[in-house]
Amino acid sequence: MADPRFFERAGPFTLAELATIAGAKLAEGADPGKRVVDVAPLESAGPEELSFLDNRRYVDAFAKSRAGACLVDPKLADRAPVGMALLLSPAPYHAYARIAQAFYPDPKPIAGVAAGAIVDPSAIIGEGAMIEAGAVIGPAAEIGARCRIGANAVIGAGVVIGEDCRIGPTATLSHCRIGARAILHPGVRIGQDGFGFAMNPKGHVKVPQLGRVIVGDDVEIGANSTIDRGAGPDTVIGDGAKIDNLVQIAHNVRIGKGCIIVAQVGISGSTQVDDLAAFGGQAGITGHLKIGKGAQIAAQSGVMRDVAPGETVGGSPAVPMRSWLKQVALLGRLAERKDANKG
Amino acid sequence: MADPRFFERAGPFTLAELATIAGAKLAEGADPGKRVVDVAPLESAGPEELSFLDNRRYVDAFAKSRAGACLVDPKLADRAPVGMALLLSPAPYHAYARIAQAFYPDPKPIAGVAAGAIVDPSAIIGEGAMIEAGAVIGPAAEIGARCRIGANAVIGAGVVIGEDCRIGPTATLSHCRIGARAILHPGVRIGQDGFGFAMNPKGHVKVPQLGRVIVGDDVEIGANSTIDRGAGPDTVIGDGAKIDNLVQIAHNVRIGKGCIIVAQVGISGSTQVDDLAAFGGQAGITGHLKIGKGAQIAAQSGVMRDVAPGETVGGSPAVPMRSWLKQVALLGRLAERKDANKG
Amino acid sequence: MADPRFFERAGPFTLAELATIAGAKLAEGADPGKRVVDVAPLESAGPEELSFLDNRRYVDAFAKSRAGACLVDPKLADRAPVGMALLLSPAPYHAYARIAQAFYPDPKPIAGVAAGAIVDPSAIIGEGAMIEAGAVIGPAAEIGARCRIGANAVIGAGVVIGEDCRIGPTATLSHCRIGARAILHPGVRIGQDGFGFAMNPKGHVKVPQLGRVIVGDDVEIGANSTIDRGAGPDTVIGDGAKIDNLVQIAHNVRIGKGCIIVAQVGISGSTQVDDLAAFGGQAGITGHLKIGKGAQIAAQSGVMRDVAPGETVGGSPAVPMRSWLKQVALLGRLAERKDANKG
Repeated sequence: MADPRFFERAGPFTLAELATIAGAKLAEGADPGKRVVDVAPLESAGPEELSFLDNRRYVDAFAKSRAGACLVDPKLADRAPVGMALLLSPAPYHAYARIAQAFYPDPKPIAGVAAGAIVDPSAIIGEGAMIEAGAVIGPAAEIGARCRIGANAVIGAGVVIGEDCRIGPTATLSHCRIGARAILHPGVRIGQDGFGFAMNPKGHVKVPQLGRVIVGDDVEIGANSTIDRGAGPDTVIGDGAKIDNLVQIAHNVRIGKGCIIVAQVGISGSTQVDDLAAFGGQAGITGHLKIGKGAQIAAQSGVMRDVAPGETVGGSPAVPMRSWLKQVALLGRLAERKDANKG
Repeated sequence: MADPRFFERAGPFTLAELATIAGAKLAEGADPGKRVVDVAPLESAGPEELSFLDNRRYVDAFAKSRAGACLVDPKLADRAPVGMALLLSPAPYHAYARIAQAFYPDPKPIAGVAAGAIVDPSAIIGEGAMIEAGAVIGPAAEIGARCRIGANAVIGAGVVIGEDCRIGPTATLSHCRIGARAILHPGVRIGQDGFGFAMNPKGHVKVPQLGRVIVGDDVEIGANSTIDRGAGPDTVIGDGAKIDNLVQIAHNVRIGKGCIIVAQVGISGSTQVDDLAAFGGQAGITGHLKIGKGAQIAAQSGVMRDVAPGETVGGSPAVPMRSWLKQVALLGRLAERKDANKG
Repeated sequence: MADPRFFERAGPFTLAELATIAGAKLAEGADPGKRVVDVAPLESAGPEELSFLDNRRYVDAFAKSRAGACLVDPKLADRAPVGMALLLSPAPYHAYARIAQAFYPDPKPIAGVAAGAIVDPSAIIGEGAMIEAGAVIGPAAEIGARCRIGANAVIGAGVVIGEDCRIGPTATLSHCRIGARAILHPGVRIGQDGFGFAMNPKGHVKVPQLGRVIVGDDVEIGANSTIDRGAGPDTVIGDGAKIDNLVQIAHNVRIGKGCIIVAQVGISGSTQVDDLAAFGGQAGITGHLKIGKGAQIAAQSGVMRDVAPGETVGGSPAVPMRSWLKQVALLGRLAERKDANKG
């Protein structure tokens, strides 16, 4: 179980309750009133715990598991050990996520402004919002209901934050609007000036950055990631986008809905990313490109051209994944052969 | 126009005033007394707004623009629509930057120490400086006149900051001297220990880092970038250098004047970079190298050797740009041919 | 000497005292009572200062140095100038590190809670610990004896920190246990949620992250680095590991003892790194891999497969170093030849 020093567990739940939470179906013979006290991995789960099988590779662990209950795809249900209660779902990992959320819900904010927080009198604090110690809320900022503003976070003048957001400790926001249910992790930087200069050997001239950052609903942004505000247009992060740690999003970039951006990716100015695109870690995208819907960018890629919807690319400079794999294989073979010739 | 929630607009200005600000020349027929209320892109600018044409690709937009006034290179002036007042400049983007600065000047600091800021009694705070809520100013630190120290920033003991600097919220400075007019964005880290150890399988021994960070005038450093102090010599950032977000500058590095360093670049210890060199995003430079004046390092390059003045390099390991482009093209062709042979 | 504005120097020491500190041996003829006031590089050291020779490349500087005393390998001792007192050591750089630590010891924490710090009444603060201004210590947190918690740092509920740790300004810790003598630089983020979602085009579902971060003794973590807590298992950083700036360690990763991780490296979820492995800057490691004991990962590598103990790899995708060097050389030659053929 999760360390009670850090996590508060809810429950127990009956199997019937968990089936409802997960949108899963009780398999024949499973007792709807069976009591479940926690979630746990297949290997360590006991008779009062629920586990899940999401990957065929773990079928053996499933077959040997002592878990009292398990989420499983109906196709694999016949591999279950005797006596295990099954919750059937075509998407067992999703179902697990819902159940784990039920056992370990986000701590509710404790409404109020903590000692040492500084809230400008013109700021509007929504009902039930929690402002932790040392947080600074600027003039005319608006904090949505039930938000949790972390210790020593800084919310700049005029910033608008939707309901039920969690803003991590020491995060800084300026020149931005944030949707509902956003999670911004510690050290996130949103809304600072984009990197815009009129270059000149005698002294680069700063170009005022006159746009904002607009963040949609249900967005998550990882620790120490940076999102600059637009130069004139806005920088936009679409609903449901999930951004990992140490990611850089430059000015005027538009990220579509549901995009997945893994750690240390950098996206240069004015690039437009359509919905559901995914970026592997450390990929870099040059400016003014269009990345199509559902495109997949491999880790460490260097993307210098538009990527078509649904396309997968890799390498630096990035090429279609199939071409990249061929290049890698060919170069490996040639180098070995060259070596053999010398022998 | 820029969102008035976040930006305060100055003006209006007459065309004659803007010509002076921009160092531009009124074209024949333009009314020097014409009133201009804002800047705007060519597509959206109206009769009281000023736009600019900096790139031949946008000549069509220029020709159709409804902007009341426009900055343009004299060579392209004949493409202007009838009735548009022209400000002629050989560098329209620079001229635009100056005019945008006039319409949207940096907010003036409001002198004083905000509630919740902690200033050591031995610190010296310059005239007109603004210390925002929660900022911590250490013993013997010196803050220049008219500086703005952001909320929850931490200025360590003895740190010296020149006049008219802007230090972002939650930035941390130690063991450093900062010139005048620097802009340090939120989360910048300056002056922490460089990464120095005497390696030993039984326990690496920390080598005290006894240098400082010296930052010149007119430097800009992006959000969450990190600049370590020297091991013995100082780490130095030259006047007018512009550094983007999430950049790493290691101990003893010397960055010349006017260098441009794009996001997520890393420069290893003791490397010396001469004036006006430019680094594309995610480039990495190993230690103890010399990067010549005006050298250009392509994005994602891995530089393992010295780079001559004026040279452009790309690839990992980096080679002269021409060689890199040849390698990329060759490998692509070979892989496709190999494929064809199989067919 | 180090700038007295920022560094307080101890000493002077006699040669005999320094020999003891360094575990070095006085060479014949060296006066054990000779007074040494500081450390300095070979080129600038004077008659009352101590330097070191660690690299054969600097033998000439050694032979000309005016340093009063010098740490040197016995094999190179005969190149010393007349009158220089020698401290003999097979590991002069280690010996230097110990002596430099003696001259410039870490400032002792000044016990107590500074004005503006907010400490929860249920937190336990060890004897002699220093809580700087604006720091926030959460409920039930435990701060070890003689720790120094930097200004505006945030220590979350239940976090446990061992003795003699230094936590940098604005660092944030949650869901973690930290060993003794750790140094966490400014802006370090430890314990936030790992990046875990059940992907779904209709809305990715967040998977609760129920593990912790466990950091060993004598660990150093660089500015703005991020270490996510585990999804169920813990994320673990072994004793004596040294991590540079802007490094990303994802959930469930296990880093062995004494590993060296240079700036901007990213290690993906669930990868296991054995003791004494070393990672060059900007290397990226995909998830669920095993990196063997003492493995060496070149800068900017993209590691997609397990790495055997003691192996050195480079390139993206990474291959054994010897293969990578051959590939690089071959491609360079082919591109040039191709070019010659065209001429």
